[in-house]
Amino acid sequence: MDYKKIIESDLNEILKDKAEDLTCQAARYSLLSGGKRLRPMMMYMTYDMFSGDQDPVFDDVRYYAATLEMIHTYSLIHDDLPCMDNDDLRRGNPTCHKKFGEGIATLAGDLLLNTAMERLMAIALDKPCYLFASYRMAKLAGINGMIGGQSIDITSENKQIPPDDLYELQEKKTGALIECAVLTPYYLLNKTDRSSFEDDENISLLRQFAAHVGLAFQIKDDILDVTSDPKTLGKSCGKDERDNKSTFVTLLGMDNANARLGSEIDKAHGILDILKGKGYNTTDYSDLVDYLKIRGN
Amino acid sequence: MDYKKIIESDLNEILKDKAEDLTCQAARYSLLSGGKRLRPMMMYMTYDMFSGDQDPVFDDVRYYAATLEMIHTYSLIHDDLPCMDNDDLRRGNPTCHKKFGEGIATLAGDLLLNTAMERLMAIALDKPCYLFASYRMAKLAGINGMIGGQSIDITSENKQIPPDDLYELQEKKTGALIECAVLTPYYLLNKTDRSSFEDDENISLLRQFAAHVGLAFQIKDDILDVTSDPKTLGKSCGKDERDNKSTFVTLLGMDNANARLGSEIDKAHGILDILKGKGYNTTDYSDLVDYLKIRGN
Repeated sequence: MDYKKIIESDLNEILKDKAEDLTCQAARYSLLSGGKRLRPMMMYMTYDMFSGDQDPVFDDVRYYAATLEMIHTYSLIHDDLPCMDNDDLRRGNPTCHKKFGEGIATLAGDLLLNTAMERLMAIALDKPCYLFASYRMAKLAGINGMIGGQSIDITSENKQIPPDDLYELQEKKTGALIECAVLTPYYLLNKTDRSSFEDDENISLLRQFAAHVGLAFQIKDDILDVTSDPKTLGKSCGKDERDNKSTFVTLLGMDNANARLGSEIDKAHGILDILKGKGYNTTDYSDLVDYLKIRGN
Repeated sequence: MDYKKIIESDLNEILKDKAEDLTCQAARYSLLSGGKRLRPMMMYMTYDMFSGDQDPVFDDVRYYAATLEMIHTYSLIHDDLPCMDNDDLRRGNPTCHKKFGEGIATLAGDLLLNTAMERLMAIALDKPCYLFASYRMAKLAGINGMIGGQSIDITSENKQIPPDDLYELQEKKTGALIECAVLTPYYLLNKTDRSSFEDDENISLLRQFAAHVGLAFQIKDDILDVTSDPKTLGKSCGKDERDNKSTFVTLLGMDNANARLGSEIDKAHGILDILKGKGYNTTDYSDLVDYLKIRGN
């Protein structure tokens, strides 16, 4: 199945019935402006790895995949604002505030976050066994995850921070939603609740895998900010240096950053090997991990 | 019981364990900067009206009251930003972005919204019968409620809008969270789910009551923006005129706005009389309604 097509089609349904509202237009503009759709794609990969054929959970994976992309997109809209990273370009297009103004963009971000949370609760009204998956997504988006990382990021501007802080920043800002992508379909398939969350060896493996992938993704992002150009990247380049930001390149140097990228890729493959040994099909994830190393945007 | 004291004490626990984080500090600054606490106070009034003595639900009402105030506060932080209403003063203090900068203030708003949503799901993990109450709060904060009203508001700047649009704006922007305050304790006490939500006469009465209170509150707000001063009001005055905003004063004129305020107050009392006839104690709400007419800030 063409998952990318399914993702775009599902995202196109979001807030469609309110499309006369300018804030909804702004939210949809950012939501539908392309991108790699890494997080939703990973959700389908986990689903494929653990599901049988024609599993009825598939529609629910679609629902959660779109919801996670909404949370990711709201964070990009707010992150691009002049008072945050001040970016004009995102996914090759003008950023939301460049197109709609800052007030609408701020509200469009709020709207995507709020609507995502409504969805997380709405599905659990029908299927109570999903509430834990919903709760985890909300939690990973918050102070213990993405927002926590953003907060370290914004308070670290114009200074070089200690390595530990940079790892914590990355783990939360990028890593949390990637963990969410990797784990959510597994929760749905296994009706995971709080008790089974602690005991399940697969969950532990998937979390380690997500951590290596998240770190590899961020190191490559930092490398690309130095080595790429805006046309290829679809967003501004050289902004880490402009903002005097701590990155894995400033912290480790380019050679060591590349070496660390390689070692995270190797570790991710190592976890996949264990899962493969348990009988799961890890081909798609294995391809993705290799792509993360060579990706150009 | 001194509900105001309980509210302040409960709000002081929010994000306390993360108080070394600057974004959390900013969120707590706004959350703890006083205010009338109208919405939480109304939650206690509904609770008192329908609960027996020493009802075990009381702690949960406290939890939801604090959560609703978090949502209200995030909306104020974002609303005060220069790209939105551009206010320097809120509850008699510098606004969040004046104190912490716009980037942190934007993130602090996101944090309060996200944390509120985490709480709404966390409590339902323990008490699944509350999921409907949680979902309704999320929904009333979103495009069908507060954010929808904000969106009409921001797109109506610098023009006078038709009366119907202003009523819709108010109903959503202010009315939605007031409805949420009035209804939530009733949901908790009665374990309301989707089916009972449609059939319950008390819910219908409370929603009508909330609509009249919400409208009265907003008309009075518009009147105070013209007639009060910043010191009494705790926020800037005359900004509706500055921003050429449609308000109930510009739309109806001062005399008719006052008359409409009176008529909404009367209608709210009318609903309370029906509830009193059913045996419920409406004294506190009755006092509140009278206060809404004469309040000076």
